[in-house]
Amino acid sequence: MVEVRKPTEEELNWLTRRAVAEIVPEAELVKALKAGKHLRIKMGFDPTKPVITLGWAVGLRKLRQFQDLGHTIVVIVGDWTARIGDPSQKSETRQMLTEEEVMANSEAILEQFFRILDREHTEIRRQTTWFDEFSLADVVRLAARFTVAQLLERDDFANRFGAKQPIGIHELLYPLLQGYDSVAIESDVEFGGTDQKFNILVGRELQREVGQPGVAGNGQAVLLVPLLVGLDGQKKMSQSLGNFIAINEPPNEMYGKLMSIPDSLIGDYFELLTDVPDDELDAIRESIEKRAVNPMEHKKRLAREIVGYFHSRDAAQQAEDAFVATFSKGEIPTDVPEVPLPNGIFKLANFLADVGLAASASEANRLIDAGAVEINGEKVRRGGRKVDRLSAGDTIRVGKHRFVRVTAADS
Amino acid sequence: MVEVRKPTEEELNWLTRRAVAEIVPEAELVKALKAGKHLRIKMGFDPTKPVITLGWAVGLRKLRQFQDLGHTIVVIVGDWTARIGDPSQKSETRQMLTEEEVMANSEAILEQFFRILDREHTEIRRQTTWFDEFSLADVVRLAARFTVAQLLERDDFANRFGAKQPIGIHELLYPLLQGYDSVAIESDVEFGGTDQKFNILVGRELQREVGQPGVAGNGQAVLLVPLLVGLDGQKKMSQSLGNFIAINEPPNEMYGKLMSIPDSLIGDYFELLTDVPDDELDAIRESIEKRAVNPMEHKKRLAREIVGYFHSRDAAQQAEDAFVATFSKGEIPTDVPEVPLPNGIFKLANFLADVGLAASASEANRLIDAGAVEINGEKVRRGGRKVDRLSAGDTIRVGKHRFVRVTAADS
Repeated sequence: MVEVRKPTEEELNWLTRRAVAEIVPEAELVKALKAGKHLRIKMGFDPTKPVITLGWAVGLRKLRQFQDLGHTIVVIVGDWTARIGDPSQKSETRQMLTEEEVMANSEAILEQFFRILDREHTEIRRQTTWFDEFSLADVVRLAARFTVAQLLERDDFANRFGAKQPIGIHELLYPLLQGYDSVAIESDVEFGGTDQKFNILVGRELQREVGQPGVAGNGQAVLLVPLLVGLDGQKKMSQSLGNFIAINEPPNEMYGKLMSIPDSLIGDYFELLTDVPDDELDAIRESIEKRAVNPMEHKKRLAREIVGYFHSRDAAQQAEDAFVATFSKGEIPTDVPEVPLPNGIFKLANFLADVGLAASASEANRLIDAGAVEINGEKVRRGGRKVDRLSAGDTIRVGKHRFVRVTAADS
Repeated sequence: MVEVRKPTEEELNWLTRRAVAEIVPEAELVKALKAGKHLRIKMGFDPTKPVITLGWAVGLRKLRQFQDLGHTIVVIVGDWTARIGDPSQKSETRQMLTEEEVMANSEAILEQFFRILDREHTEIRRQTTWFDEFSLADVVRLAARFTVAQLLERDDFANRFGAKQPIGIHELLYPLLQGYDSVAIESDVEFGGTDQKFNILVGRELQREVGQPGVAGNGQAVLLVPLLVGLDGQKKMSQSLGNFIAINEPPNEMYGKLMSIPDSLIGDYFELLTDVPDDELDAIRESIEKRAVNPMEHKKRLAREIVGYFHSRDAAQQAEDAFVATFSKGEIPTDVPEVPLPNGIFKLANFLADVGLAASASEANRLIDAGAVEINGEKVRRGGRKVDRLSAGDTIRVGKHRFVRVTAADS
């Protein structure tokens, strides 16, 4: 029998309010928590790429709070979906992955999850366990539980259908498959970002139809956390947009990137990514609004808190020292990441994108045009500087805080 | 190598014009026929019930013409679809069938097909051969080839979607599965009633995408025959509406039912169900329009032709003699079908429906109210005459031409 601790009023408040967007049905989930009922909380992920951003950390930290009370997180590895990719995409953007690639990505992601989650209270389940055995009859029975109109209510489908953009029939199946995952693992609660609400409700509906109780007799409860806005201050943090910090970035990189966020994000980042108490959080928001102190001071604390959480207090302090030294004196920091010169001839812009200093080659070109790229302290001008004119030992700076040092090419 | 004979101009005209609603693409099919290319012509059927009506005969006769030139008819037994039924229907109207029931129905149907088709040039393929092995990945890849908007163009879907009536997601899959049948058997032409056009075009599209040439390099051609209107003169002939003649009905029943059709159908029945030459057909249509002779004379010829085709010239003549005797003298015919008294107590209306003298109990009640039901020459009145007051030897007459004789109950 799993030991579950009932939360104090204060813990309950933190659990259901801080960094929480919505709970459906909230009263029932609170009741279950108060009763000390052991919960199976589902979280799915897509192992298409091995990167986990701080956007994920918002939810993982919330799940860790549940684990600390003794609840179980059931992590669904979306290996079936990753292997099939999106067959309607003829482009290479969503290729099918091999079983080995999916396994490698999953392992990498799970290791990052366990920087936050408690391994002991985590159950790992692979979609392929049930979907490799799924028959056509299973698909038809599943599909028969939902109507076209119901699925077209999902915001993105509704918008695309309204705009006469194509929606593949298989796209209607994916929410049903994700919902079936809940049936397969008998979850009590499913967790996700606010953009997952529709899909999670499909799982709730399916559980209800097959008679799985979930948290309160009506299928799984839904626990939604807010989406973290990325470094650009505009869009959801995501790997494909390049506006992200990965969970496993080294301290100085993480610190530097956090120092680059717009002031408007400071409050939300404190709320979603730190344990700074609510009253301090309110004070920070107010201070930023009134410009009571230089917002950079808040950002420094934010960056220290987050780097401290993922690395250590010492690492955070060293990152701050390095940052201050660089920022205030224009110095090159001491522990610049090293990247090997690529073989063959590349454009500099592609190189910058490849090593992660820009989200894409075109963004790199914009940075070059804006005078934000230096090699050995000298501004790079547009016009196709080739990478083969870089030498081992050259230092490239992008913006204020991001550096790489070039080493000899891999042979 | 299959021996294929090229049709004469006259045969080609008959093949592509008589009892044909539409051919897509017509020029290519004609070219293939003229070139003596061997064609695989697909026809699917649903073995949910063991009855095949004269509506089917329209197409089967057309297919037989192709067989007579040496082409192959590939009959798809829809055993997979019949076994799963419609999982969204909670009513008993579309139950799942067991494998045994499906097999028995298929055998019964195929025997009826072979009253028209040439067994030698027929290939029988069961859907389960491919769909029992279909994986979830196969379904997703298939579904990815079509969009929601494309499928919602099908008339019945468009109407239901417009009227906000539910369309199950599985219903979108069925046309794709039917289309996949064409890929599985590599058909050159698919045949069906005009109501099948959309589904057959899905098969054509799928073949094109996977690079199967069909009749002219662009996927299977589509050959559509007109729908036969039922005995009521209003709706498509179908078993569920009760307005049908089964292919295997005995001569007198078939003859009697044909004599009951409205005059407005005579011309179409001649066109779709007989080999009466086109010029005679025109003359018959004209005669009916101008009421040049009593239409019953044309109906007699029609009934003789059709009964002669399914039974024999002699049987047709005997049926006519029996009909004339009954009709003109009010006599009971000599070879009345016998039905056992049911056990227990039933309403007469249910009994009439059960033995096929009415499409439903409510229709039987309407017939009783209309004075069209007699027992031993005496009109039955409404008010719940119970079947247990029938005795072995009683003769029931419904309308002018339909009789049964009651025998002792089965024990």
